[in-house]
Amino acid sequence: MPLHPDRYFSPDPAQRAVARQLYQDVRALPLVCPHGHVEPLLFSNPDYRFGSPVDLLIIPDHYVFRMLYSRGIALESLGIPTLDGTPVEGDPRRIWQTFAEHFDLFRGTPTGIWLADTLETVFGIRDRLDSANAQAIYDHIAAALEQPELRPRALYDRFRIEVLCTTDAASDTLEHHQTIREQWNARILPTFRPDGVVNLDSEGWRAEIDRLSHVSGLHIHNYATFIQALEDRRAFFKRMGAVATDHGAPTAHTEPLRDGAAERIFQRALHGETNPEDVIRFTGHMLIEMARMSVEDGLVMQLHVGSHRNHNPAVYRRFGRDKGADIPLATEFTHSLKPLLDAHGNDTRLTLIVFTLDESAYSRELAPLAGHYPALRLGPPWWFHDSLNGMRRYFEGVMETAGIHNTAGFNDDTRAFLSIPARHDVWRRASCDWLAGLVVRHIIDEADAAAMARACAYDLAKATYRL
Amino acid sequence: MPLHPDRYFSPDPAQRAVARQLYQDVRALPLVCPHGHVEPLLFSNPDYRFGSPVDLLIIPDHYVFRMLYSRGIALESLGIPTLDGTPVEGDPRRIWQTFAEHFDLFRGTPTGIWLADTLETVFGIRDRLDSANAQAIYDHIAAALEQPELRPRALYDRFRIEVLCTTDAASDTLEHHQTIREQWNARILPTFRPDGVVNLDSEGWRAEIDRLSHVSGLHIHNYATFIQALEDRRAFFKRMGAVATDHGAPTAHTEPLRDGAAERIFQRALHGETNPEDVIRFTGHMLIEMARMSVEDGLVMQLHVGSHRNHNPAVYRRFGRDKGADIPLATEFTHSLKPLLDAHGNDTRLTLIVFTLDESAYSRELAPLAGHYPALRLGPPWWFHDSLNGMRRYFEGVMETAGIHNTAGFNDDTRAFLSIPARHDVWRRASCDWLAGLVVRHIIDEADAAAMARACAYDLAKATYRL
Amino acid sequence: MPLHPDRYFSPDPAQRAVARQLYQDVRALPLVCPHGHVEPLLFSNPDYRFGSPVDLLIIPDHYVFRMLYSRGIALESLGIPTLDGTPVEGDPRRIWQTFAEHFDLFRGTPTGIWLADTLETVFGIRDRLDSANAQAIYDHIAAALEQPELRPRALYDRFRIEVLCTTDAASDTLEHHQTIREQWNARILPTFRPDGVVNLDSEGWRAEIDRLSHVSGLHIHNYATFIQALEDRRAFFKRMGAVATDHGAPTAHTEPLRDGAAERIFQRALHGETNPEDVIRFTGHMLIEMARMSVEDGLVMQLHVGSHRNHNPAVYRRFGRDKGADIPLATEFTHSLKPLLDAHGNDTRLTLIVFTLDESAYSRELAPLAGHYPALRLGPPWWFHDSLNGMRRYFEGVMETAGIHNTAGFNDDTRAFLSIPARHDVWRRASCDWLAGLVVRHIIDEADAAAMARACAYDLAKATYRL
Repeated sequence: MPLHPDRYFSPDPAQRAVARQLYQDVRALPLVCPHGHVEPLLFSNPDYRFGSPVDLLIIPDHYVFRMLYSRGIALESLGIPTLDGTPVEGDPRRIWQTFAEHFDLFRGTPTGIWLADTLETVFGIRDRLDSANAQAIYDHIAAALEQPELRPRALYDRFRIEVLCTTDAASDTLEHHQTIREQWNARILPTFRPDGVVNLDSEGWRAEIDRLSHVSGLHIHNYATFIQALEDRRAFFKRMGAVATDHGAPTAHTEPLRDGAAERIFQRALHGETNPEDVIRFTGHMLIEMARMSVEDGLVMQLHVGSHRNHNPAVYRRFGRDKGADIPLATEFTHSLKPLLDAHGNDTRLTLIVFTLDESAYSRELAPLAGHYPALRLGPPWWFHDSLNGMRRYFEGVMETAGIHNTAGFNDDTRAFLSIPARHDVWRRASCDWLAGLVVRHIIDEADAAAMARACAYDLAKATYRL
Repeated sequence: MPLHPDRYFSPDPAQRAVARQLYQDVRALPLVCPHGHVEPLLFSNPDYRFGSPVDLLIIPDHYVFRMLYSRGIALESLGIPTLDGTPVEGDPRRIWQTFAEHFDLFRGTPTGIWLADTLETVFGIRDRLDSANAQAIYDHIAAALEQPELRPRALYDRFRIEVLCTTDAASDTLEHHQTIREQWNARILPTFRPDGVVNLDSEGWRAEIDRLSHVSGLHIHNYATFIQALEDRRAFFKRMGAVATDHGAPTAHTEPLRDGAAERIFQRALHGETNPEDVIRFTGHMLIEMARMSVEDGLVMQLHVGSHRNHNPAVYRRFGRDKGADIPLATEFTHSLKPLLDAHGNDTRLTLIVFTLDESAYSRELAPLAGHYPALRLGPPWWFHDSLNGMRRYFEGVMETAGIHNTAGFNDDTRAFLSIPARHDVWRRASCDWLAGLVVRHIIDEADAAAMARACAYDLAKATYRL
Repeated sequence: MPLHPDRYFSPDPAQRAVARQLYQDVRALPLVCPHGHVEPLLFSNPDYRFGSPVDLLIIPDHYVFRMLYSRGIALESLGIPTLDGTPVEGDPRRIWQTFAEHFDLFRGTPTGIWLADTLETVFGIRDRLDSANAQAIYDHIAAALEQPELRPRALYDRFRIEVLCTTDAASDTLEHHQTIREQWNARILPTFRPDGVVNLDSEGWRAEIDRLSHVSGLHIHNYATFIQALEDRRAFFKRMGAVATDHGAPTAHTEPLRDGAAERIFQRALHGETNPEDVIRFTGHMLIEMARMSVEDGLVMQLHVGSHRNHNPAVYRRFGRDKGADIPLATEFTHSLKPLLDAHGNDTRLTLIVFTLDESAYSRELAPLAGHYPALRLGPPWWFHDSLNGMRRYFEGVMETAGIHNTAGFNDDTRAFLSIPARHDVWRRASCDWLAGLVVRHIIDEADAAAMARACAYDLAKATYRL
């Protein structure tokens, strides 16, 4: 089943014709990637190789292996490494065969779409993977991965990426970024993500504070030195090209701590004595502090909330985090964000981009908030909702109230570097089809639609992230 | 981009043909406007003039200026008056120019649709507003507003309004309504909205109680006299033509207060000593009392819940209420309405119309409730959801379970008198397109669809509001 | 309005052509009915007769009479029996006339669809019911019901039912199932539903415990004997052919009770001293126990949560349960199911099928959970959502993330035996139309679609329920 040139467009001939025309004008625009999880290591070494097809496409991609796991296929049999080093399947050909035999599980899923696109556009594979052709396709991919055109830097150029932002801990020394800056003329920018020190219940919080002390040269022994270290690191990230910060939390709770409460909680944390309420309140306070710093230093602030991380303790104990076991939660924004917005929501120096996993908040809370507060933007459909239906629900639930200019364009938000063009292409096709639907219902005209398609594909991301 | 005769209809030729036919039969039906916020002042003075284009279309319309504000345009620059009299932009031509320069923000929004419709159908303007033509269009509108055809009473007739209900405080003396009744043969009816005295945390509650004492001629010094005054005012409103009451609250909480609890809370309120729990419980109790009074006097009861009013304190302090900073909340109905429904939900003398800003409650709670309780009806898509997609979600989420006869037809719910025909037209087109979709999928036949289209456009509103 | 052969398909010619082709291949597949509420009594007596048209189509069907009740038609006038024996309308022809006069209420509703399909396909009635033809249609149905082809066993064969699971209390002796097994070669299987003894606030809980003691031959005097009795009954049900259990609860709360807490609550229950918290905690604990037993005995576990049963106390007091007054609640799954999933979610011996009335959880919680945990499946759209739009929302909200193989196919879940073919037909048409939409948008190919259509119509239900 080769990729169809009109894929994902409405079957209605009138709408499809408009969508196709809109898409022609945006399909080849450069890719702006302001938020994602590609490792900078891929680019710091000009000879970086991806390893086997399994190392490339299965082991690092929790979208892929969680679906197989849900059908009873052991993670060990897919080669997912255990924390304690217990051996797992080590033969990539056997892993690939298992994957191929269950490829039907991805029918109609975004993962299936990205895989099909990647296999065809990157590797020239137009046959659908199945148990019979699995080894031949493995051979084909493995051979291609030997070629210089498949090195990450070559693909970066081939994919027409204009800028790619990574996600990096507050204590990160950004050595790979430094190497890239010195060696190569590409915009690979770090993003400051201090969750490991801001969320007091982060695994290894104390060690991470020590690392932060070390890299900042400040002895963090109280709240004031903690804040100072964060401000210093933000300045360092900014010098290294960062345009944004990113923050993850289970909820959107914000709360200003007053009269030394932040100091008292921080001291309890240093002594290993925090309680769950401390954790929630401190994160809520720090989000306001981060907004304050963004007002001052101009870094765009991103907020990703509403995931219950590591929901499956058996998987977490054996395999660690990011194993497809993060589950969304119902998320409240109207009350929760109010303290932060009270403090900084009217300040045009701040850009706060909010991402949700709770689509019921789109039309109810987030579009009305983004449609009022100057500082607020709504991020694109995130994670489980980065899909054709997720995008449709987003366009239909958000845009009438917020208008497109209060949204932030697209983020591919991926660890899977090879899937980046496919993800942008799905978004571009979906946005063109949505706009074509407005044209054929005479809500906007074709000139409007063309401008809006370009904004969705390119302009909004650049403008929102100040890129 | 002139208005297209098939606008908002499906692009599918078969569905569009049915929709067009259905629409032809309802498009010219009179407008029934059972809930809205047009000032009766517009009609009590036969020579009322709207002022400048900016006074007419921008300054009173928070749908318009909140979108501009969200993009960093100061409310002062749009001429929104400050509470303390600090000067704001006073040149309507400059305000209009700013508006025109940002008119793109309204692409694909309901506000954009209403503005385009109003400009073309009321003023004959078929060019899209932009920075180049802004002053010419301003001139055109300003000149038109000088004409007698643009007086509110002339427009009322031109719009084919059959009845228009206003929204009025419990203490309102309804002088404008009295003048209208004496001078003019049009159905402009008051609606009894006692939020200012029922919600104990209303701004100026104590002064409003005094006004209520004054107009009712009762000295309100306890709960019993409070109830008596409300009953007297309802009787007065009814004599003045009212058919309905309206009630706003943050939640749908209802709760009968017993054994003097209402009296104790009311006394605390008179002494300025209420706490937040008192406020919630008293409103919850009063909603049941209002249902009881509706059973007795036959006034239809409307309930609008789920808005966090004045979410932005900086805007509220400087500009006051209704400035586009009211944000919806997740809203529970199944538990919350139960005490009221336990008391009066089976009573066919009561008609209780519920409006929500939380669309997730449509299929989950409100359609099942309206599809069971004889007293309950579901109001049309409200506020942010009074849009093409909001209507589609409403038709698709509500009608299968509740049936159309447990819904209340359309409300324009607007302060913007000139937008009333556009709003009804969007609803009529959207409902015809929805019904056409059922016809072409052979779920209903064309005769059914024609009857249902008429019900949605006209009959349901008249019947539900007993007009 | 006779049934159209392309009913419920998209009007788009390309999509409709694909849907029609897919449907041709699944329309005649046998019906697998793994969850429902048909009485086994219908089949244990080979000469069972349905009674009058009203006994068949109105009095037992709360989908029908709750809609009439919502419009102010007294349940007494529809012949719904009162608990205290107060007389109600006894003339079925008058009841039928009332029904016919209000048949318009069902336009565009699933009940209207099922009725139209049943009247045409079972009784050959192609005219729409109205007040004029009501008595003639009554005569026609009454005459048909005299014929041997209308006996339940004959219809079972005519409907091509392959297996039909009933729902039975833990204390049920399954005599009708025994008779069926002895007399007739059809798969009518019991399902173990112990809500009456597991939910401590069930009406008549104490008497039900006594019945359970009686049928199990165990004196249930403590938690251990209670568990023993349940295990014994599960074994009995399994011997009688059961493949599944079913559990209903207001929420999805699960919680392991430790250190004798279950025993203490059970003793309080035996003494009539439970409090609401006890009830919630005990049910939450028992759900984990039931999962443990399912791991051991292989019975598939079904969980139906989120209904506020008997919401209307006046109707409940007069007419009892299941009178169309059960109203859905917002339902949380991510936190609530975690304790159960922590214990058994990774165990491939368990199949836990979850049903929800809160569609906002589809894409937010349930699809991500089902797309990760090996033990979890998502049940089909339930109750109010067993409708064309409910199915569309389910396909669009669930399948991209969970994949179809983590769903459980279709359940008709009905007491109305005659509506079973219509309900399956709606599902088959809706799933084919959904898949056709994926084909024409080039997301899947026609071979994929054909396999997926067959899975939705037949294979998934058989495999998930181990039938």
